[in-house]
Amino acid sequence: MRSLLVATSNPGKAAEIAQILQGFRVITLADIPTLPEVEENGETFLENALLKAKYYSQATGELTMADDSGLVVDALGGAPGVRSSRFAANDESRVAKILALMEHVPDEKRSARFACAIAVIDPDGVTITSEGRVEGSITRSPRGKNGFGYDPVFLVGDTGLTMAELPSEAKNSTSHRGKALAKVLPLVRVLLQK
Amino acid sequence: MRSLLVATSNPGKAAEIAQILQGFRVITLADIPTLPEVEENGETFLENALLKAKYYSQATGELTMADDSGLVVDALGGAPGVRSSRFAANDESRVAKILALMEHVPDEKRSARFACAIAVIDPDGVTITSEGRVEGSITRSPRGKNGFGYDPVFLVGDTGLTMAELPSEAKNSTSHRGKALAKVLPLVRVLLQK
Repeated sequence: MRSLLVATSNPGKAAEIAQILQGFRVITLADIPTLPEVEENGETFLENALLKAKYYSQATGELTMADDSGLVVDALGGAPGVRSSRFAANDESRVAKILALMEHVPDEKRSARFACAIAVIDPDGVTITSEGRVEGSITRSPRGKNGFGYDPVFLVGDTGLTMAELPSEAKNSTSHRGKALAKVLPLVRVLLQK
Repeated sequence: MRSLLVATSNPGKAAEIAQILQGFRVITLADIPTLPEVEENGETFLENALLKAKYYSQATGELTMADDSGLVVDALGGAPGVRSSRFAANDESRVAKILALMEHVPDEKRSARFACAIAVIDPDGVTITSEGRVEGSITRSPRGKNGFGYDPVFLVGDTGLTMAELPSEAKNSTSHRGKALAKVLPLVRVLLQK
């Protein structure tokens, strides 16, 4: 059975993906020789996911999965978008920055979505991509301890809960990343069993 | 079971793909309402395959497979490449044009390859792409009755046979399109059984 290299340096993401991928032989960037980081200069989540998957699959020869995801806030013209992880230095300051920018935005204009793109590249000449999203809105203060990033200020659809208040099982099936993963997993299983 | 729309208006390609896809419920452009043709203005076979698959999957909502392929001749700087089907008005004149351009090219510099890219788009948010190629060289005169396009002047690897001289079963496993198809078929089967 082949391995799947999950190419992310974000421990939060790696843990989330490894949990959903139970039963697969999953390796991470910690398991391979250190490589220079790839510049995520794509204009879309999908471009960034492909950039990373190509880079690491070419460097290692492994079946490689990479993802890119972020928060898209309508009142901010789509920001932070592909700059979600570069929006501020850490999760706490990212959350604070969003809340500050949204301070005077009324409730009915606080719509937002989490979007995720996943790219899986088999060096044998096959690429799979998928996209998932979850609609919601920005709260007025952070709530919840689960997850990471903008999860505490993102109210999920009509659940009344922030992404950080969802139990991790519910999050895996509800989240943008969970949805994108659910679409590629049956296909990845085929590639792993080759 | 869902259908797979094989989006090609080339009867030769459609027949070849339908033969390899036995057991699947395959429909073609002849089975759907007529749509304006999509302009194949990509710079690579992969871009063109994606252009077509996106266009027809969005227009029909069907799981859609499109491909683009062509002949890449080293002595002609990669031509006809993505312009393979626009190189001349019909198969006969395409073959004649290649042979004329290659008239004074010595045997050891007549290397070429057939390349194929396939894109499969599930409107649910999944894209699969694959690439296949077969190395060979350009003959000095056309030979063989099978296939279409440049097949009669393309000598396959070290078989001593042109692509048009290969029996169709051998061609399905040897050809650029056959190789690219073999990579996506196990994945397409998963999407069809959803």
